[in-house]
Amino acid sequence: MEIPAHFHFSHRRLVEFADTDLAGIMHFANFFRFVESAEHAFFRSLGYRVHTATGTEHEGWPRIEVSCKYLKPARFEQTLETCLRIEELRTSSLRYSFWLFVADEPTRSLVATGSCSIIHVQLDTGTHAIRKSPIPEGLRQCFESFVGPVSEQLQGKPPAIRTI
Amino acid sequence: MEIPAHFHFSHRRLVEFADTDLAGIMHFANFFRFVESAEHAFFRSLGYRVHTATGTEHEGWPRIEVSCKYLKPARFEQTLETCLRIEELRTSSLRYSFWLFVADEPTRSLVATGSCSIIHVQLDTGTHAIRKSPIPEGLRQCFESFVGPVSEQLQGKPPAIRTI
Amino acid sequence: MEIPAHFHFSHRRLVEFADTDLAGIMHFANFFRFVESAEHAFFRSLGYRVHTATGTEHEGWPRIEVSCKYLKPARFEQTLETCLRIEELRTSSLRYSFWLFVADEPTRSLVATGSCSIIHVQLDTGTHAIRKSPIPEGLRQCFESFVGPVSEQLQGKPPAIRTI
Amino acid sequence: MEIPAHFHFSHRRLVEFADTDLAGIMHFANFFRFVESAEHAFFRSLGYRVHTATGTEHEGWPRIEVSCKYLKPARFEQTLETCLRIEELRTSSLRYSFWLFVADEPTRSLVATGSCSIIHVQLDTGTHAIRKSPIPEGLRQCFESFVGPVSEQLQGKPPAIRTI
Repeated sequence: MEIPAHFHFSHRRLVEFADTDLAGIMHFANFFRFVESAEHAFFRSLGYRVHTATGTEHEGWPRIEVSCKYLKPARFEQTLETCLRIEELRTSSLRYSFWLFVADEPTRSLVATGSCSIIHVQLDTGTHAIRKSPIPEGLRQCFESFVGPVSEQLQGKPPAIRTI
Repeated sequence: MEIPAHFHFSHRRLVEFADTDLAGIMHFANFFRFVESAEHAFFRSLGYRVHTATGTEHEGWPRIEVSCKYLKPARFEQTLETCLRIEELRTSSLRYSFWLFVADEPTRSLVATGSCSIIHVQLDTGTHAIRKSPIPEGLRQCFESFVGPVSEQLQGKPPAIRTI
Repeated sequence: MEIPAHFHFSHRRLVEFADTDLAGIMHFANFFRFVESAEHAFFRSLGYRVHTATGTEHEGWPRIEVSCKYLKPARFEQTLETCLRIEELRTSSLRYSFWLFVADEPTRSLVATGSCSIIHVQLDTGTHAIRKSPIPEGLRQCFESFVGPVSEQLQGKPPAIRTI
Repeated sequence: MEIPAHFHFSHRRLVEFADTDLAGIMHFANFFRFVESAEHAFFRSLGYRVHTATGTEHEGWPRIEVSCKYLKPARFEQTLETCLRIEELRTSSLRYSFWLFVADEPTRSLVATGSCSIIHVQLDTGTHAIRKSPIPEGLRQCFESFVGPVSEQLQGKPPAIRTI
């Protein structure tokens, strides 16, 4: 298990009672809620909102694909630190990896890791039409400051995982 | 604890793993999800949907007030039967009581009971404007077939709890 | 709507994307998760945990009864401040009221208010036996510092709502 | 996208209001709840429970790894049919693929697909010890009736995806 030395963003959240299940640990689907919280906090830290609406025209970032490996249980009242790193940046989409650590342990155990591919879309909640849409200019520039220009990545250069 | 002999609707749903918490039982907030499932199935049984949208204009039934008494734990893989009875019908709103029984026990233990007051609204998801709106004619007639005319109830007649 | 000038505890939490529903606002059942988060943070602030386990013997605080009035919608990325006040303290149980305000508005709109009655129990997750149990001495003393001795309240004195 | 002609199990569940988010569609994390519901129904169909407890000794099936591709939104009041196929069977673990279709459409649109690797464990909720444990004999035989003997698969034979 390779863990990068640096991340692009990190975010803490407490495991609440309602996040657990009868096995006494956080329910596996709720890890994705923690990852989503971190992603949305990442967007806010860059001055952007992950979801906006004008009339029926919404802009948002639905998921294309997600995955998660579960390494250790997460328990009630542990604080988890979710760390994100953008791996691939494209015109309308990006893929980031995530790592969830137990924040309040000296050893900072890794409890889960995985990735999310998300796409920028315009969706009309009236007609249900959804179409992909280029990442807004300013936000793209923020992401490029982490992983380099989209153009390079689209030209078959090595993927965005780089030493930062 | 008085339990009516007859209900206006009943609906079954299984307690899933994700509904439980580390105390080994269904999380208290999830009982309201079961009640909502039953309410929406009630609407469907009458030929109506609890939420519709045309452009940014939504019609729906937000909650005004809810309450619940918890009598016994509900456990993983129990089937709960949620029984509803309309207690009060008004021009734009109604109040119903609910009872949740363990469906797959001969004794049909009562695990929880309470009530929900809900209101028919038109809400504009563009402007966020919400205004109450009379219950659609056909739906109101359905409800009146259970509890009698709205007009009687508005004139200070005894509330809609009646032998049915 | 009377709002007390002082509360016994307050706690902030962000409305996350996963807390909302297709009406564009926080789902009504999730308000109870926010209240529970505040309650558990209240316990932690007093040096206690709301749930502990030794083998199959758990100590916890299940709900006896809850209620909530919904006054305004709560929206994505609003921070809600949940304020608690103990209203009644008994040997094994207590009732508190809660108020949820929009924390990041100058006007601090009240979005919901209600109450929870909770009981201290010992539950055996092996046998499923549950029995009520006196509130642990130290914790009871903490609560009494807010609302006065249990003994007074049990003797039919006026309920614990008092100017503080 | 290759979809198998036959599945080992299928299970239907309605998209409830509480499953949706403000984008007007089912929240991405909730797809995993639907998959879990199907998995547990699969176990029940074979005469087994996915989670049992004797005192603090629990037997269960935590997730090792999950993934999901999202192809189309799932909407309120759609019935989804979740179809499962075991792909790999090992001594203590298995991996299955899943496909979620809109059940109440003639075209049966595929909305999502992915896989879950799960492991049979004994966990002690007192000590928090977790150790992997061979799949119980009878249950293993059920799974082998779908995909052939574990022994073959462990000897480097082609993976369990086969025409059935």
